[in-house]
Amino acid sequence: MENYNKLVEHYKTISNFSHLSAICGWDAAAMMPSGGNHARSEAMAQLSLHIHQLSTAPQLADWFEQAQSDDLDAGQRASLTEMKRQWQLSTVVPEDLVKAKSLAGSKCEHAWRTQRGNNDWDGFCKNFEQVVRLSQEEAQIRGEQAGLSPYDAMLDIYEPGVNTKQLDAIFGDLVSWLPQLTQQVIDKQKSESVYETNESYSTEQQNALGLEVMKLLQFDFDHGRLDISSHPFCGGVPQDVRITTRYDESDFVQSLMGIVHETGHARYEQGLPKKWAGLPVGQARSMGIHESQSLFFEMQLGRSEPFIRNLAPLAQKHFVTNNNQVFELSNLQKIYTRVQPGYIRVDADELTYPAHVILRYEIERDLMNGIIGYRDIPELWDLKMKQLLNLSTEGNFKDGCMQDIHWTDGSFGYFPSYTLGAMYAAQFMAAIEETIDVNEAIRTGDLTPIFTWLSENIWSKGCLFTTDELVSSATGQTLNSQYFEEHLKRRYL
Amino acid sequence: MENYNKLVEHYKTISNFSHLSAICGWDAAAMMPSGGNHARSEAMAQLSLHIHQLSTAPQLADWFEQAQSDDLDAGQRASLTEMKRQWQLSTVVPEDLVKAKSLAGSKCEHAWRTQRGNNDWDGFCKNFEQVVRLSQEEAQIRGEQAGLSPYDAMLDIYEPGVNTKQLDAIFGDLVSWLPQLTQQVIDKQKSESVYETNESYSTEQQNALGLEVMKLLQFDFDHGRLDISSHPFCGGVPQDVRITTRYDESDFVQSLMGIVHETGHARYEQGLPKKWAGLPVGQARSMGIHESQSLFFEMQLGRSEPFIRNLAPLAQKHFVTNNNQVFELSNLQKIYTRVQPGYIRVDADELTYPAHVILRYEIERDLMNGIIGYRDIPELWDLKMKQLLNLSTEGNFKDGCMQDIHWTDGSFGYFPSYTLGAMYAAQFMAAIEETIDVNEAIRTGDLTPIFTWLSENIWSKGCLFTTDELVSSATGQTLNSQYFEEHLKRRYL
Repeated sequence: MENYNKLVEHYKTISNFSHLSAICGWDAAAMMPSGGNHARSEAMAQLSLHIHQLSTAPQLADWFEQAQSDDLDAGQRASLTEMKRQWQLSTVVPEDLVKAKSLAGSKCEHAWRTQRGNNDWDGFCKNFEQVVRLSQEEAQIRGEQAGLSPYDAMLDIYEPGVNTKQLDAIFGDLVSWLPQLTQQVIDKQKSESVYETNESYSTEQQNALGLEVMKLLQFDFDHGRLDISSHPFCGGVPQDVRITTRYDESDFVQSLMGIVHETGHARYEQGLPKKWAGLPVGQARSMGIHESQSLFFEMQLGRSEPFIRNLAPLAQKHFVTNNNQVFELSNLQKIYTRVQPGYIRVDADELTYPAHVILRYEIERDLMNGIIGYRDIPELWDLKMKQLLNLSTEGNFKDGCMQDIHWTDGSFGYFPSYTLGAMYAAQFMAAIEETIDVNEAIRTGDLTPIFTWLSENIWSKGCLFTTDELVSSATGQTLNSQYFEEHLKRRYL
Repeated sequence: MENYNKLVEHYKTISNFSHLSAICGWDAAAMMPSGGNHARSEAMAQLSLHIHQLSTAPQLADWFEQAQSDDLDAGQRASLTEMKRQWQLSTVVPEDLVKAKSLAGSKCEHAWRTQRGNNDWDGFCKNFEQVVRLSQEEAQIRGEQAGLSPYDAMLDIYEPGVNTKQLDAIFGDLVSWLPQLTQQVIDKQKSESVYETNESYSTEQQNALGLEVMKLLQFDFDHGRLDISSHPFCGGVPQDVRITTRYDESDFVQSLMGIVHETGHARYEQGLPKKWAGLPVGQARSMGIHESQSLFFEMQLGRSEPFIRNLAPLAQKHFVTNNNQVFELSNLQKIYTRVQPGYIRVDADELTYPAHVILRYEIERDLMNGIIGYRDIPELWDLKMKQLLNLSTEGNFKDGCMQDIHWTDGSFGYFPSYTLGAMYAAQFMAAIEETIDVNEAIRTGDLTPIFTWLSENIWSKGCLFTTDELVSSATGQTLNSQYFEEHLKRRYL
């Protein structure tokens, strides 16, 4: 145990510094005045360097070796496995490359903020070229070390265990039925009339409603807060989860579901195993599982009929309107399940969202594997948008391949997590429905049985299991995309 | 320059970590939900340890030695001097003692929060004994190293250069005229009628007024914020200064002047020399000079007739009242210059405040020098309160020696800074009045000339000079308490 305990102490130290990074990162997005940015960036870069040094400390190799012969129980074995995983992810890429990529990503992202508005693809490419080159180099090195293709090695950072072969199959299946279903739903919704809201809802009103919905979702306000930032996120630490949203006074729709979404991320963090706090094994299993929780809250719960039945009187209570029909159950339900192909991923509905992910997946896969170059992206983007959503993005870079931050800062391999998350969410809901009357629980406003299931099967497990093991033990089988298909057909047809 | 530059890099590293500590400290007081406290305390303790290790790094001794032969200009010499000063303050006390005192202080402070309310002096003593013993040990060690008495060595932490001999003379002089002046003023004010406010002022209204007053005081909102905490303070970093206040809805008086006070601290921080950012020489000169700026804002400016003339219409604008006489100039002025001896230091007016400080000074001086024991404190407190303010605190510990946090956590030597600050503030104002029509500037609402003087003479100097040099170069002489006496007589008689 002695060697393992040295590792525990070391990883708790890393966790303490990561805590400070999380809080100061939240502060930079939600609180900091713009003039504080320069000094903060320097302080955060210093902290990142320190965390990187701790994560790649030379003595760790020996400690891992020695800890193998410690007498460890199953939990400690899993804990050791996750420490090693994080250590390998950190050490495999040379420090120079880490720094160069981080620098290139920051530079590209900073310029992108104005270039996107100007639709300036050529200007963007001047920085993006470097980001792609360094990311390809990283993918190459990670792949060689792990015995994987370059892109599979990048996937492994965010979604350990998943690979191109699986994703090709899963996404291939999706493409075989989703576009057709989407068209069917669009045709069906054409004949429906929806009362649009064209009134103004103050930030204070929207915030008060948001807080009430968070209470319904049992967000623990003794261990977290809701604030405002220009891009909504879930940050902080499990003991103090900071979620943010943005308010558009002419449109309450997006921000409210945004709060529900981030509350899903937050409850996963708040429900992580306290016994393993501060250790890698006590963290969220993967980005896909993290997205499964936010999408479980937003899609499985939030847009369901009984949930909107709860929402309707709350909206009526907080919003003064000249048109009460807007906040009636049937109308709110239509608003929250409307399907409309569009250019922008983050604005996409449940049915068209996967198309945005699949398109990015296919491009980033081939880019990391060296099959295409970054100059090929716009044409491929346009082609796939036409195939999947029947929309042209010819010459429209800002609503096309320049819309996301992920590639801009070199996070290739992240996108599939979103759609994996949507599928896991549907599978979890199907499993829950086997033993719990979900609609009845939502209708009564006491969602405890649902959250107890999630807590026992997902949240409290941290990284004790692989994703496959976690999903199997929770649902009796590994990922099965059929539940997602059934969910969509049931809700939208 | 090579050796000096190594030091610069090292101290900028320390500054980066201190930045994170300042922001997370602010967050803990102003934002953090209570359930986040345990994890935050651990993360902050880890960070403190890291900063302490950097501050006492073994290589620094050599670097200081080598830097002596570098070719440095006057600014760099001053910079080196301040680095050495901070290094000596950090290294002279053994690490075990630092830890033990910090632990004893935390324990004592935590228990004090409930013991104070219960007037539980005996319970308090169980922890306080340890705090005093370790502080005496620290004072002894610091004194021996610096060739000073134990208490003078503690003074030196907060107010470098000041000593007991000076303070005995300054405070002795104060005691010779202040109690009599106070009595005269109380007699004079007896015949004045003041309209008390007994209405309620919402947090939002008070906050809006506070922000407007901060604008008048030219607080830079691009490099700072105003928030709420249970104990007002000025935190953050010079590039991003975080001030806080607390609002009592039944009393706007204290919180408004609290904001003015903290804005004084904040503008000093915002005005520190950017050229020396991140280095000890770029920091505030001393606690006394820091208090001089907050008290310049609160006492010299904030409670002056022309300032209250500006305040009156703002208060009328933000507060709805049934009694307009409350917010009339003459009445507001009476409210803000009322003199009333009381038990509590932080609630004291300008005239009785020094008595609270002198009492604590005399006790902590003799305690650190081993002339009295901690058990003697209540009796001495009662005796001195009777002598100075004619109030009995017999048996009343909670409004007596248990009221402050300073001794509870072992900050012996801090108290004199408050009254030194009040004296410096009066001296600065007298110097400013020689070349600037201060009343006219305040009356027009454009205080720029006053702030330019403060910026040029105080803020932008950082630690380039000693306190005596700084005050001399700004006012033509070292500390002269006569300006404080003249100010009080002019305002209150």
